[in-house]
Amino acid sequence: MPAKTPGRAILVGAGPGDPDLLTLRAARALGAAELVLYDALVDPRVLALAPRAARFYVGKRAGRAAIAQSTIHALILRAVRRGKTVVRLKAGDPFVLGRGGEEALFCGDVGIPCEVIPGVTSAIAGPAAAGIPVTHRGVAPGVLVLSAVPDTHYRAILSRLPPGSVTVVLMMALGSRSSIASFLAGAGWPAELPAAIVLGATTPSQWSWTGTLADIGDAEVPDDRRELPGLLVLGPVVSLSLAILTATPPARSTPHDRRHGHIPQEATPWPRMQVP
Amino acid sequence: MPAKTPGRAILVGAGPGDPDLLTLRAARALGAAELVLYDALVDPRVLALAPRAARFYVGKRAGRAAIAQSTIHALILRAVRRGKTVVRLKAGDPFVLGRGGEEALFCGDVGIPCEVIPGVTSAIAGPAAAGIPVTHRGVAPGVLVLSAVPDTHYRAILSRLPPGSVTVVLMMALGSRSSIASFLAGAGWPAELPAAIVLGATTPSQWSWTGTLADIGDAEVPDDRRELPGLLVLGPVVSLSLAILTATPPARSTPHDRRHGHIPQEATPWPRMQVP
Repeated sequence: MPAKTPGRAILVGAGPGDPDLLTLRAARALGAAELVLYDALVDPRVLALAPRAARFYVGKRAGRAAIAQSTIHALILRAVRRGKTVVRLKAGDPFVLGRGGEEALFCGDVGIPCEVIPGVTSAIAGPAAAGIPVTHRGVAPGVLVLSAVPDTHYRAILSRLPPGSVTVVLMMALGSRSSIASFLAGAGWPAELPAAIVLGATTPSQWSWTGTLADIGDAEVPDDRRELPGLLVLGPVVSLSLAILTATPPARSTPHDRRHGHIPQEATPWPRMQVP
Repeated sequence: MPAKTPGRAILVGAGPGDPDLLTLRAARALGAAELVLYDALVDPRVLALAPRAARFYVGKRAGRAAIAQSTIHALILRAVRRGKTVVRLKAGDPFVLGRGGEEALFCGDVGIPCEVIPGVTSAIAGPAAAGIPVTHRGVAPGVLVLSAVPDTHYRAILSRLPPGSVTVVLMMALGSRSSIASFLAGAGWPAELPAAIVLGATTPSQWSWTGTLADIGDAEVPDDRRELPGLLVLGPVVSLSLAILTATPPARSTPHDRRHGHIPQEATPWPRMQVP
């Protein structure tokens, strides 16, 4: 009789949305999974890579009731103790605002083996899908990725940061874009700083808007896009987006023809901004 | 006679080092490539995914003569005009300090089709491979990724940032770690701020060190590791690394046995730091 295989947990970054942006290692982990605990933002085609696995939705979205983190921990522990290979499938990268660190520490505390597979983060690939390079020589020597929740953190940091010195990507920020814009205006950030909204990046529902910090609070988001995961981008690199999108239309679209791409008509026009 | 296929350029993020961290889309692009222009940090096993392609090294490393960016542009243009599928294979993500934006804009300027495939950035996966989650609830609500070259940029930004408020990842920073540490000490950053060095992340040569801002300038790096791509991590999240590494030993090692992992003996011991 063969020895029972010990269970293990694998924290997998599913990438920004498009199943093609999963890593080779993540795809293999899904193929080996017996249980997949997945988030709201994970594409069904990614789940299909785990044909042997039971799949359990543990996600949460803005304003909705959420499964407790301790419940997720308990589900991981119980299955691993039963010898299962458990994939905890997380949108983006497990360590970028994904609570992967908490899950890894929990595994350590209870003594179950754990592996972390990094993913393409939507904090970088999301702007890229809208034509925005988060860094660019002579324009932005770096990028600051920040949670917009709670507001005390981003306020303490952005009120000190020289405006426009690095690209700022604010995650989970769609609903609070008005208060973010007001706060930054009050902190002396220039009204004409290029700014963007990117929703559902790299998915068929992707929607983007570009404008300025002065406009972003009142930017109209279509009703059917408001539930998409959203990020804001603040900085001069946003002004490169029209030229880069023209050169690099979104994946799966016909080159140089955005009409068939991921960006719907509502996203146009793309105003060309001045670097302040 | 079939119509000639038009050429195109694809800017591909190769990920942090481990070939398994390539995305599915990147692997497919390599399979279709007829010419691959690759950087110094790209693994030969990644190049092996492009069996049909001519491969040309265009990389540069610290202190070495480099091929000019304009030469890379000219190579892309010539091959695409000849109808080739050209993959520009870049370490990490094309838009994170990789000059991908410049190459995309060049393609737009000369009117050749271009696609950008994001990658797992070493700025996030590098710390993760050393057990460091760049964000962590209650410890770091964000991460600032910055080039250490030239020093004027990071100095202007870090002298204003509240120390320890977000995780700071400094890229291309190994050689200047002493001057970075001195500068931050002069700017009032606490000597006991947890700090890490990560070299060659996710490769068999990975080497890491953890300590404090006070120590990092004098941290000894073995002679045979000094040419590896290096980053510094500054922030309280570094203090989580021992516990997370114990829970999640580096990929391909036996669980709970770091001796066979990617982190050589020189990297131990891992001091447990206090969150300041």
